[in-house]
Amino acid sequence: MQINSINGGITAVEGVKAAGIKKGKYGLALISGGGTAACVYTKNSFKSGSLLVTNEHIARSGICNAVIINSGCANAFTGDEGIRDAEKICKMVAQYLNIPSETVLIASTGVIGVRLDMDLILSEFNLIKDKLDSSPDASSMVAEAIMTTDTHPKEVAVEIRGSNGFVIGGVAKGSGMIAPDMATMLAFIYTDAALDHKTLQAALREAVNHSFNMTVVDGDMSTNDMVLLVSTGRRSNVAITEFQAALSHVCESLAKMIAADGEGATKLIEVMVRGAVTKEDATKAVKTILRSPLVKTAIFGGDPNWGRIASAIGYSGARVQEDKLSIELAGGGLTASVLYQGKARNEMDVASRIFDENEIQILVDIGLGDEEAKGWGCDLSYEYVRINAEYTT
Amino acid sequence: MQINSINGGITAVEGVKAAGIKKGKYGLALISGGGTAACVYTKNSFKSGSLLVTNEHIARSGICNAVIINSGCANAFTGDEGIRDAEKICKMVAQYLNIPSETVLIASTGVIGVRLDMDLILSEFNLIKDKLDSSPDASSMVAEAIMTTDTHPKEVAVEIRGSNGFVIGGVAKGSGMIAPDMATMLAFIYTDAALDHKTLQAALREAVNHSFNMTVVDGDMSTNDMVLLVSTGRRSNVAITEFQAALSHVCESLAKMIAADGEGATKLIEVMVRGAVTKEDATKAVKTILRSPLVKTAIFGGDPNWGRIASAIGYSGARVQEDKLSIELAGGGLTASVLYQGKARNEMDVASRIFDENEIQILVDIGLGDEEAKGWGCDLSYEYVRINAEYTT
Repeated sequence: MQINSINGGITAVEGVKAAGIKKGKYGLALISGGGTAACVYTKNSFKSGSLLVTNEHIARSGICNAVIINSGCANAFTGDEGIRDAEKICKMVAQYLNIPSETVLIASTGVIGVRLDMDLILSEFNLIKDKLDSSPDASSMVAEAIMTTDTHPKEVAVEIRGSNGFVIGGVAKGSGMIAPDMATMLAFIYTDAALDHKTLQAALREAVNHSFNMTVVDGDMSTNDMVLLVSTGRRSNVAITEFQAALSHVCESLAKMIAADGEGATKLIEVMVRGAVTKEDATKAVKTILRSPLVKTAIFGGDPNWGRIASAIGYSGARVQEDKLSIELAGGGLTASVLYQGKARNEMDVASRIFDENEIQILVDIGLGDEEAKGWGCDLSYEYVRINAEYTT
Repeated sequence: MQINSINGGITAVEGVKAAGIKKGKYGLALISGGGTAACVYTKNSFKSGSLLVTNEHIARSGICNAVIINSGCANAFTGDEGIRDAEKICKMVAQYLNIPSETVLIASTGVIGVRLDMDLILSEFNLIKDKLDSSPDASSMVAEAIMTTDTHPKEVAVEIRGSNGFVIGGVAKGSGMIAPDMATMLAFIYTDAALDHKTLQAALREAVNHSFNMTVVDGDMSTNDMVLLVSTGRRSNVAITEFQAALSHVCESLAKMIAADGEGATKLIEVMVRGAVTKEDATKAVKTILRSPLVKTAIFGGDPNWGRIASAIGYSGARVQEDKLSIELAGGGLTASVLYQGKARNEMDVASRIFDENEIQILVDIGLGDEEAKGWGCDLSYEYVRINAEYTT
């Protein structure tokens, strides 16, 4: 089986149309077409009104015929009024497209504690509703409309060819507040693979666990995050193993785009931990390294201070033993062993050159077992501070 | 009972002498005098050779007659050789002071993965050993010698007067890598209160839990942290409740100095959470707010973006309910209610003025129970990034 990258994002899937607009920091996107839906949400105890409405609609109908997404306002901490606002917007979309309101889903991203500007949303909706289109550009318009502090739109599409082939396409946003367990990120993924809700949900959960949930920008988790997977059901007899592999690839691609576009990021970091006693230990070590401000600033500064990596592993909660721990750094075709079974190695010149690269791999061998995990993050720069100090309420 | 601030630090305790020197980033400090010792350590799984030796000495002797502290090198990830180096240094001190080696304790702070420069330590030791002195200046010399990225030396002394009175004095260092559970911080506290090891240990554990362990600078935990409490035993009949209160005051004072001197900090933040279902919930909420890079950058930027505070509480793991949550901001004599029982309030002008202050209080009422917790931290600035990007291996 081969996963082929193809042009476009969500509109690469037949029957999916999209439109979007961005006015200053207030964007609106609309996606039509769809079918069976699966979704995973933020673990934050406080949830956006939009997210609550989407959750209820999927629970009731199991179907997504349209999605409307606004950027600039999170519709969080807006109480019952926030829920009513989200319901009103879904109804407006339902009436226009002549579909049941409970098959319309809604997502929001932006500032917390402010109600949605319904007049603005209505006027933007009137500007885009007639522009629903299945071109690659239409998908890009959605990717752009949902950006907040993102610097690049994020989309991907893949095709599995052959008589049992299928397509998966996705768009995503996210750069600040990204954390394990999916923080301030939205992803909308479409496929033509005919699979039932339960199969889609399980496949999405699995793919999200190894992609978005292994992405760390600043360790914060938002009130609004969701990853939606919708199947138009046009291609049957799809092999579930092939679907899982392709979906994981799509999620991993979007997750890496999010990590690379972390607020103020100058470098993409991939951390691979192997030799852990349990999968959970490996995951803890990966996330703790990616979350450590000291590791992130060292990488920004191009300083291969591996002691900070070792220290992060030490407080991650993973079982470790000093004389078993090894750390390698890789990037730009170079590899440097900086710690081997607890002993410092003199490969710091090569390590310094690696830390000048834009993509850096940190390879940790805990040396106690057979479990492993992988994750992505970015460095911590002046620009991160600037963006978040200036992003105003 | 009244806790009176007095001049000086550790040498405010009779019988305690100190000396210190700082050459570039390599400092050495020596403290003599003492008696019964208690100590709490880092929870990092990787521990510095110096810390392991101190732990063993206290376990064997229960006594501290001298402490030697070096800055610039952590003596961590140095294996058996690191332990032998630390033992050698203790022996050198023991021979000079004519005391058993197992009553000499050692602490180190600095870069990980590099062995101690024994020649440098010997030469610095020879420069300071004859200068042991009981003046306030001698305590300050220690406070300065143990600094790394600290910008101010940290010391405090208090006296409880009366026939059952006593003195407690302490010095501390710490600014980067500070986290709950005591990260890259050292504190050395002396008292003349005659209490046994078990009582001292319990009092220290209690005081540390509500002070250093509630301090967050960047959420990293080092391999080297310790808080040492030594009693000369010269004042008997001390009331344990009075001792506990005075010790907690000393620890809290040093903890706040550390938070205010967080790397690049421009503002001291105090977070108070009340109305939690359990003490653990309250503590989780405090630490999650203090650790959130989004909250920290908002405070640096002077932007009272309370949505980030609410979001942090939401993912802290504490039990919460949106329509019960209230948030107040205070500082410079002003108070602003920004969220009351889940509803946003229009006190943002006052909130903005509060966020311009150097000391900011965040008061959260979860509204579900009676438990509370308090902690300290600082903002996240460009300077934090600069310090940690440039601090080199």
